[in-house]
Amino acid sequence: MLASQGYDLLSYRLANADQRRDFFSSMPVKRNADAVIISSFDISETERRTLEQLGMPVIGVNTIGLTEQRDMISIGVDEIIAMRQTVHQLAGLGHRNIAFICKQQDSNGFIWEADQRIEGFRLGMAAEGLNLPDGYIIAVQDNEFAGAEALSSLLALSPRPTAVCCISDENAIPLVHALRSYGFRVPEDISVIGFDDWPMAQALNISTVRHDPRSYGALAADAAIRLSRGEILTESCIVVPTTLMLRGTTGPAPRD
Amino acid sequence: MLASQGYDLLSYRLANADQRRDFFSSMPVKRNADAVIISSFDISETERRTLEQLGMPVIGVNTIGLTEQRDMISIGVDEIIAMRQTVHQLAGLGHRNIAFICKQQDSNGFIWEADQRIEGFRLGMAAEGLNLPDGYIIAVQDNEFAGAEALSSLLALSPRPTAVCCISDENAIPLVHALRSYGFRVPEDISVIGFDDWPMAQALNISTVRHDPRSYGALAADAAIRLSRGEILTESCIVVPTTLMLRGTTGPAPRD
Repeated sequence: MLASQGYDLLSYRLANADQRRDFFSSMPVKRNADAVIISSFDISETERRTLEQLGMPVIGVNTIGLTEQRDMISIGVDEIIAMRQTVHQLAGLGHRNIAFICKQQDSNGFIWEADQRIEGFRLGMAAEGLNLPDGYIIAVQDNEFAGAEALSSLLALSPRPTAVCCISDENAIPLVHALRSYGFRVPEDISVIGFDDWPMAQALNISTVRHDPRSYGALAADAAIRLSRGEILTESCIVVPTTLMLRGTTGPAPRD
Repeated sequence: MLASQGYDLLSYRLANADQRRDFFSSMPVKRNADAVIISSFDISETERRTLEQLGMPVIGVNTIGLTEQRDMISIGVDEIIAMRQTVHQLAGLGHRNIAFICKQQDSNGFIWEADQRIEGFRLGMAAEGLNLPDGYIIAVQDNEFAGAEALSSLLALSPRPTAVCCISDENAIPLVHALRSYGFRVPEDISVIGFDDWPMAQALNISTVRHDPRSYGALAADAAIRLSRGEILTESCIVVPTTLMLRGTTGPAPRD
């Protein structure tokens, strides 16, 4: 998209707090760019002001904290609505005891857009009139033991959940594997639903929430080009749709 | 790595033949860069000459076709040796009938470094004195049906393979899923081994060949910086090691 219009893409990966601070402190004076695209993490008030002072368009892709400013536009999924729909669907299948699996908080202090899914889950449970007992939101490590860790946490819960929402397919896939390895039937004994619709989720027949990162990459590139040419966009926020993909890991709640 | 040394990384994704032609035709005059890093696909003779004429260092990461030139260095795994080791290991477990699953050829005419794994597999079978009957190298589509497609091709083979090497974990993971969905025991009935050691392969206990793309990304960045500063490197080729990770999807060949 950018390449076909003659633009280059400079990539900066901010993997920790130091890199983040360096980037924001050196950015305004560093070079001429036509636009800045920020992806997936929250922006602090100070960082937002730094971006404003650049005098160049800023495009947030799944970025929390961009406010309505001229030359700033935010693109992404509405995580809250997506999770509310997911919980609503599971409640419609008769599930009353629904747990949520997410990754442990980022040790680098980043707050990721996906963290909003937790809030969406809470709101969804409340909207359906369902209890959310202590321990039903389970944070697991981001490593190869995540599936086993989630499984043992789930088995310790009372009442035993009949459905589990996962913050990502990355969590859902190992959990389904761990459940089946221990003799649980998915979805007959327990339903599992992920988020993202990775190709691997499709290959393994995992229920999930589809969104299309490529589409908002393209929207971001388009907005960057138009804003840098001086166009004024009518929207400050573009919400891209999500779709529930109910596959082989979700089904009706088991009867007592 | 590059960022900490004050360098920027410009990314160009060449997804098809047009983008590739445009890139190579406009590159020499396009802009000042300190070095070019090419990743994962083959370089034609013409492209290699274009790169030579740039007068800047060229670093190939898993790139076939860079010859020994001053200011050109190639970094990557030895796919041939890695696959020969894999076949040797399976032969040691008693497997005589070993099939290979790969993706159908790239419609954009790219030849990927990973394609060398097929050649490594052939050489490994020959080195072990094993037959490679027609149909034992199975190319599947790159979509959600790959697992099912590979399974039905496997079941049509005579003799029935007792082990399957896959060109990537991306192929191995859906195949293991498809096999188990149809009631085959992995590894008791059939062994499966992937390549790459994706985190998901670890989470799903899939046997695979580990290599570390990050390590050669860092080696490439280091070489780019050193060459662009005028240093002369003693090696024109850095081979990074691979490790066989035998997990839960490989075991002894079943007895007849």
